[in-house]
Amino acid sequence: MPANRQLHLDNRPQGEAQTSNFVMVHAPTPALQEGEVLVRHHYLSLDPYMRGRMNDAKSYAQPQALGQTMQGGTVGEVVESRNARYPVGTKVVGMGGWQEYSVVNAELPGALRSVDTTHVPLSAYLGAVGMPGVTAYYGLVHIIAPKAGETMVVSAATGAVGSAFAALSKARGCRTVGIAGGAEKCAYAVEELGFDACIDYKQHTTAASLSAAIAQACPNGIDGYFENVGGMVLDAVLPRLNAFGRIAVCGMIAGYNGAPLPMAQPALILMQRLKIEGFIVSEHMEVWPAALTELGTLVATGKLRARESIAQGLENAPEAFLGLLKGKNFGKQLVKLI
Amino acid sequence: MPANRQLHLDNRPQGEAQTSNFVMVHAPTPALQEGEVLVRHHYLSLDPYMRGRMNDAKSYAQPQALGQTMQGGTVGEVVESRNARYPVGTKVVGMGGWQEYSVVNAELPGALRSVDTTHVPLSAYLGAVGMPGVTAYYGLVHIIAPKAGETMVVSAATGAVGSAFAALSKARGCRTVGIAGGAEKCAYAVEELGFDACIDYKQHTTAASLSAAIAQACPNGIDGYFENVGGMVLDAVLPRLNAFGRIAVCGMIAGYNGAPLPMAQPALILMQRLKIEGFIVSEHMEVWPAALTELGTLVATGKLRARESIAQGLENAPEAFLGLLKGKNFGKQLVKLI
Repeated sequence: MPANRQLHLDNRPQGEAQTSNFVMVHAPTPALQEGEVLVRHHYLSLDPYMRGRMNDAKSYAQPQALGQTMQGGTVGEVVESRNARYPVGTKVVGMGGWQEYSVVNAELPGALRSVDTTHVPLSAYLGAVGMPGVTAYYGLVHIIAPKAGETMVVSAATGAVGSAFAALSKARGCRTVGIAGGAEKCAYAVEELGFDACIDYKQHTTAASLSAAIAQACPNGIDGYFENVGGMVLDAVLPRLNAFGRIAVCGMIAGYNGAPLPMAQPALILMQRLKIEGFIVSEHMEVWPAALTELGTLVATGKLRARESIAQGLENAPEAFLGLLKGKNFGKQLVKLI
Repeated sequence: MPANRQLHLDNRPQGEAQTSNFVMVHAPTPALQEGEVLVRHHYLSLDPYMRGRMNDAKSYAQPQALGQTMQGGTVGEVVESRNARYPVGTKVVGMGGWQEYSVVNAELPGALRSVDTTHVPLSAYLGAVGMPGVTAYYGLVHIIAPKAGETMVVSAATGAVGSAFAALSKARGCRTVGIAGGAEKCAYAVEELGFDACIDYKQHTTAASLSAAIAQACPNGIDGYFENVGGMVLDAVLPRLNAFGRIAVCGMIAGYNGAPLPMAQPALILMQRLKIEGFIVSEHMEVWPAALTELGTLVATGKLRARESIAQGLENAPEAFLGLLKGKNFGKQLVKLI
């Protein structure tokens, strides 16, 4: 049984999360029972939703238990097996958590999924062809329901969700505008991800100023908005929505670390007859097959070339995670474990 | 041709609306052309949406033009006719505006509708069996889509919309809770309108305190909320919504007179996967026939006994309108003109 390293949640953040909230634990991997496999994790996924789980508060997810391995998505390879459907060498995606190995009962529904890495790299199953990609798909296709020629906007545009959103939106014939932090990210959004325009929110200190820049990039207004951020960005976008605009609320990362951020002008919901809907992709498993098929094809054909930020080694996961919460990552944030 | 009196919008409000924004104008009624009728208005409807139109700002409705008769719903009787389908004596509902008479080309689609006052009083066609009733119907049936046993909440509970909402919600087997201003309105809501409970928001100075009272009245949380008010009431209701709760946004009257009121905790939209949708009933004419049938039956059978506040005489319309914006009315606000 190989030695395993795990990152546990040691204590809950007071305000901003800190690396001291986590602690590294060394533990041997247990012997396999019938039906179980031992997975060597190649990559660990870091995602904004994890910040919400660190609080002991009512949220859409159960709080992360103290003294337990942080939960999270992983891709890896079966290195020991007592399950005939998952022989040694199988590439798998699962929820292995912040650790180097996991023992998984592969008979439990949804515990593991074997993946084909012929045309899609293994790490993409944590990003474009994984939960973030399906998140973009659900919000765009099922909440916003775009029509060709409409204008779509997404915040955190160069992140894992934003990248997939751009490819899916362009495939539907929509003008697609991103909002991101910094000139480098904005250039990348237009040059590599296919955005028609991208606005650098860091150039603006007020919602009004950002809103004016959005208006310039969206001469026909906005019909669909995919919200990853909240706060000032939401306040800047809202006045630019056309009548009957739709907003898919996937994240409010701007408020994760502190006090709740208000929405400045909710009366616009009425004036413009907007529809705003929050969602969590794991509650819509029925869309995953169609979403993964389209996303896999976009990646395999080079139409979705999502960037990755890769931290090296489990010990660097906390620092990378805190960076993600501040937008320091560039594309999907991963931790490489092997 | 009878002499007519009209109230024009003379100047736009700076902040709070004033009676001095209106001016009374005397004008003869013009001679009828072929197809036209002269309607003597019996009642004029006063509605919160009129406040928005007094501003020269982007809103869901065109601004009310200065120097023109204020627009608004009316019921009355045809007193001269050059249209065979609307003989003298026909009772009609239309958009006659703030005046004693109107000349209407009854051939224009939607300009006039003849109504049957055998079982439903004429004034009800401006309230429960008119635009406010259909507003409640659309928000409840088409946006909230309630299931029997769920909990529904409506603000401005004793108003024309709230009254109809209660009857429609109870008919669908829902626990129905109102929010209104003052003990008298709350008692009336429970004793006459069929609400299961009604909360007096005037007993609370903070959203947190009001929210605690709402929690007590809604032991199973809230599944559907019909928003007429906004501001503190919305902030108090939002944390009580259950997962997958639906909010129909019909009005934000709390913010009509001044600066936009923020929404304190939009992150709840994500955490509870809420759907929030703004609407204007005049954009959904397809639901009117079914809605008016159900509402007419509820009124005719005594299951919906909506109260009316009646001001006497056109000259008192501005004062009554300003009172409506402050919640001084009790039930549907009308002006009796004859």
